[in-house]
Amino acid sequence: MSAQQPPDSPVVHHPAAPIGVFDSGIGGLTVAREIMRQLPTESIVYFGDTARVPYGPKSPDTVRRYSHEIAEFLRGEGVKAIVIACNTATAHALPMLRAEQPLPVIGVVEPGARAAVGASRGGTVGVIGTMGTIASGAYERAIRALRHDVAVLGQPCPLFVPFVEEGWLSHEATRLVAHEYLDALRDRSMDTLVLGCTHYPLLKPLIGEVVGRSVRLIDSAEETAAETGRVLVSRGLAAPAGTTPRHRFIASDAPDHFSRMAQRFLGAPLERVETVTLG
Amino acid sequence: MSAQQPPDSPVVHHPAAPIGVFDSGIGGLTVAREIMRQLPTESIVYFGDTARVPYGPKSPDTVRRYSHEIAEFLRGEGVKAIVIACNTATAHALPMLRAEQPLPVIGVVEPGARAAVGASRGGTVGVIGTMGTIASGAYERAIRALRHDVAVLGQPCPLFVPFVEEGWLSHEATRLVAHEYLDALRDRSMDTLVLGCTHYPLLKPLIGEVVGRSVRLIDSAEETAAETGRVLVSRGLAAPAGTTPRHRFIASDAPDHFSRMAQRFLGAPLERVETVTLG
Repeated sequence: MSAQQPPDSPVVHHPAAPIGVFDSGIGGLTVAREIMRQLPTESIVYFGDTARVPYGPKSPDTVRRYSHEIAEFLRGEGVKAIVIACNTATAHALPMLRAEQPLPVIGVVEPGARAAVGASRGGTVGVIGTMGTIASGAYERAIRALRHDVAVLGQPCPLFVPFVEEGWLSHEATRLVAHEYLDALRDRSMDTLVLGCTHYPLLKPLIGEVVGRSVRLIDSAEETAAETGRVLVSRGLAAPAGTTPRHRFIASDAPDHFSRMAQRFLGAPLERVETVTLG
Repeated sequence: MSAQQPPDSPVVHHPAAPIGVFDSGIGGLTVAREIMRQLPTESIVYFGDTARVPYGPKSPDTVRRYSHEIAEFLRGEGVKAIVIACNTATAHALPMLRAEQPLPVIGVVEPGARAAVGASRGGTVGVIGTMGTIASGAYERAIRALRHDVAVLGQPCPLFVPFVEEGWLSHEATRLVAHEYLDALRDRSMDTLVLGCTHYPLLKPLIGEVVGRSVRLIDSAEETAAETGRVLVSRGLAAPAGTTPRHRFIASDAPDHFSRMAQRFLGAPLERVETVTLG
């Protein structure tokens, strides 16, 4: 279960093994938090690629290369499944990782898309995310693949991540920014809104107020954690009841910064953040 | 003048050679723009490390490693001087690059600090920048080294960069954020304010309104360009009058994104952005 394991030894996955969760940085902690909440017996190895964050403005090839390196690292740590808790990496690297890895690989796009299609009554779904996620069209494709008559309105909200990282979750400036981004969607009869970025669950109360109660909010982190639980059960890989989980947090750079930010995302300080350099 | 030059050939620097300017991304273009304006016969090779932006949250060692790689690359391109148009890289890597490189190396901190000391009547100087720049204490040290009785008030403004990159230079939300960051400085009798981040010159009109006319704004980009001119003249390296400059722009990833953003910083679209991978 450690990096010291000889590379040619057979990798045996069993229910007590941890789930590997990775993101370009800290945003994926909202997914880790939901896994902890929904699947309280599961252990997590979280990898935040803080040395190379953000992935959004990087080219698809670069994001695939980084994702490959991280997935190989997590497999070397003995994980039983990999959760790509990053919209950009999911958009660019999910098919590649599914083809490469002998483990279940779960992304953040499909679960949110499926929940949105299930929730939408009027057939108009808004999707908000970073510039890169919206430009990739990943949510639109995933939603249309499930139900072709849904209208998908994509809206990049590049200022939301910095507001979350600054901790201004209900500041008047944050509210003005949210109105600027979201009012046009509301005016176009959106009935469901996908929070297509792992940072956004922290803004859910504010976003809910701005779009109004009639719009159903889909939290990708919640949906991804639920999907992870379903996949583990279906493969016979769910940790048995009564297991005491053990979580590890690894950052590729600046573990102190990671640790400070993590508290905002997880609601509790981290005892220890390991540092691992990749690439 | 190209990367194909054999590494063991003698590097001869002459006044017609370009100035190398580098930044973690696009912010340093405000420095490049000022060099173009103040030194219109000088050619520039600009390197934006868009594959590894931002440097702010990264560890000092990592920033030094990146800066070393870029400086070596620029030297290979035949530059006659290197301008570190990035506050984080200046804070962590300037002494190292000065020791390593056989070229003049100019950072963005000292010129701004010197101008602030010259401008401050009351002896209270505010410095705004990214979290990393303010935490490094680089401006405070540089200002105190020049005049020890100046009070330096550091204020990180992490939301300013994303607002500039979003292009919201005079939005009401930007104004609210500026008040949140700057009102406390104004209340503490600041008479001079250093814009200690290469993105901030684009917010100068708004920042000026928020802090009021009695506060003198120091634009690091302007001061760094002026310092570059002085250094070149003193070393006999200034391009002769009448020289037609030739500028090159290089990004380590996502040249299209770089090109779009560059227009906002330079006021004109770039014809061509080269891509070079380092590290």
